[in-house]
Amino acid sequence: MHNPVILTGDRPTGKLHIGHYVGSLRQRVEAQHHYRQFVMIADLQALTDNGHNPAKVTDHVLEVMADYLAAGLDPTKTTFCLQSALPALAELTTYYLNLVSVARLERNPTVKAEIQQKGFERSLPAGFLIYPVSQAADITAFRATHVPVGEDQLPMLEQTNEIVRRFNTLVGKEVLTECQPILSDTGRLPGIDGKAKMSKSLGNTIELGMSAEEIKQAVFAMYTDPNHLKVSDPGQVEGNTVFAYLDAFHPDKALVAEMKAHYQRGGLGDMRCKQVLNDCLQTLLAPMRERREAAIADKHQLLRLLQQGTEQARALTDEVLAEVKGAMGLDYFAGLN
Amino acid sequence: MHNPVILTGDRPTGKLHIGHYVGSLRQRVEAQHHYRQFVMIADLQALTDNGHNPAKVTDHVLEVMADYLAAGLDPTKTTFCLQSALPALAELTTYYLNLVSVARLERNPTVKAEIQQKGFERSLPAGFLIYPVSQAADITAFRATHVPVGEDQLPMLEQTNEIVRRFNTLVGKEVLTECQPILSDTGRLPGIDGKAKMSKSLGNTIELGMSAEEIKQAVFAMYTDPNHLKVSDPGQVEGNTVFAYLDAFHPDKALVAEMKAHYQRGGLGDMRCKQVLNDCLQTLLAPMRERREAAIADKHQLLRLLQQGTEQARALTDEVLAEVKGAMGLDYFAGLN
Repeated sequence: MHNPVILTGDRPTGKLHIGHYVGSLRQRVEAQHHYRQFVMIADLQALTDNGHNPAKVTDHVLEVMADYLAAGLDPTKTTFCLQSALPALAELTTYYLNLVSVARLERNPTVKAEIQQKGFERSLPAGFLIYPVSQAADITAFRATHVPVGEDQLPMLEQTNEIVRRFNTLVGKEVLTECQPILSDTGRLPGIDGKAKMSKSLGNTIELGMSAEEIKQAVFAMYTDPNHLKVSDPGQVEGNTVFAYLDAFHPDKALVAEMKAHYQRGGLGDMRCKQVLNDCLQTLLAPMRERREAAIADKHQLLRLLQQGTEQARALTDEVLAEVKGAMGLDYFAGLN
Repeated sequence: MHNPVILTGDRPTGKLHIGHYVGSLRQRVEAQHHYRQFVMIADLQALTDNGHNPAKVTDHVLEVMADYLAAGLDPTKTTFCLQSALPALAELTTYYLNLVSVARLERNPTVKAEIQQKGFERSLPAGFLIYPVSQAADITAFRATHVPVGEDQLPMLEQTNEIVRRFNTLVGKEVLTECQPILSDTGRLPGIDGKAKMSKSLGNTIELGMSAEEIKQAVFAMYTDPNHLKVSDPGQVEGNTVFAYLDAFHPDKALVAEMKAHYQRGGLGDMRCKQVLNDCLQTLLAPMRERREAAIADKHQLLRLLQQGTEQARALTDEVLAEVKGAMGLDYFAGLN
């Protein structure tokens, strides 16, 4: 049995927000006590659909690092690393690409959906089509046993395990490790405008580093029940962003249940609800903002932290690459020296 | 102006034969006096269509090295290197893949033709589809200015130069170097059975290391004019393998012209022609066989030679990779230490 290892990470294309916090960062802060955890800043993957604008990616690497520390990830417990500084990943991708057909990649439901979403059609960059293989390289290079994913990312892990089995069968031994998903039980947090997707480009996020005033403004601009005109009217809780956020963040579940009932029968105003949410988010985010400011104030130290973790990750991933090459007989020079 | 640099090489999937000699090895022996020349054993590329049988590739690396020395390549003038031991190539491929669309790869005439030839259809390995990008990585990593190719490989160089221009435009400076083809003026040598393609799997080759007896047998089994039954009959020179070989290998062009005329008017027997060809091939191949035997007898030394060249190539290709990453802003840690 392998020691449990988590690999997870983010594409550095923007600052992280409370959608990331509730969807993944919070779980990582918990997981770092129970697993060997690698958190990878996936700049290579971000380049697969930002190939013509590398600065968008490189500019956000340290921002994301600061967000990690802000969220409570502890560099003595979690290893941070940078994808582009791990050469084994590209080499493993090269080998795995020979074991996967183009037809299989085109059938990948996650890639299919993302191609449509991003409107690539005929201009689809080759790097984007093959990124499930590159992801398999990431996961296997860390010998990750557990990968936190959303439901929509499950086909990526299937693709990884398919490559693992194919490779192990090919070389006749268990060189690579299969992984299993850790499915997130929280749904996706809507944007403050009620739209399903929270994203920087839609301007509907609350970033981890926002000032108290910015948070307050975002909360009070939040989408609620558009038919709830007077405080005495009965209001709708479903699709009401304020309640979605209270569910996600408020520690007192009984209080939230009570508020929902009150809101539904009438007599509880939006303003009051937003005040409760604002208090809760201010409490949550104040220490994060503080940690974030301290972190970003010393970029040199932040970079050094990333470098140290990357060196650890490099040793591990180089070792896995050497095993893969050895199993294929590509260790020609091993006998020399 | 860049110093002229040649990059060339072979897929290690079998021993080299006189078809390779006349088509490329002979030119390399000449070129090593005028160019900085890298000869790469392309084991990674060979794996793109032998992914399920890596031993076929790895078993031939030293055989090909021995063939190089046999043919007269001089390790003090030519740098031999091994593709899989140059990690920069996989990394460069990763970056270039974001600059090329899947549609563009599918339109590549060379790849299209090879897909048909190899009967891949839906089972096409992803590694095979993207190999023009991997080839662009090879060429640019060595700052190759000249690449010897056949007519059918010209689209590969176009693809490379397209990537070079796209990358240089993207980063706003001349980081990568465009290359130009050195077109071979010799046509392809037919197999001894007269088939257009000489290949190990068809058993119609004369390998560089064959014994005198094997060469003789091959020459005397050679396909000639099937209608040339009696010595006194007029014979056909076109499509006659013996004359194709005499054209390719015999140093005395006047003698060959005379023999052709004699054969065409009748009175020159196949046996006599084959004797002349046999003498000529024995003279050509005897020193090669000798050098090959000496080389393969000390595999350790052969491997060390390959390792030394690979180290030189690694320094160069790592340098180019560092420039590429630097130009994209991916040299995050450069300021540290």
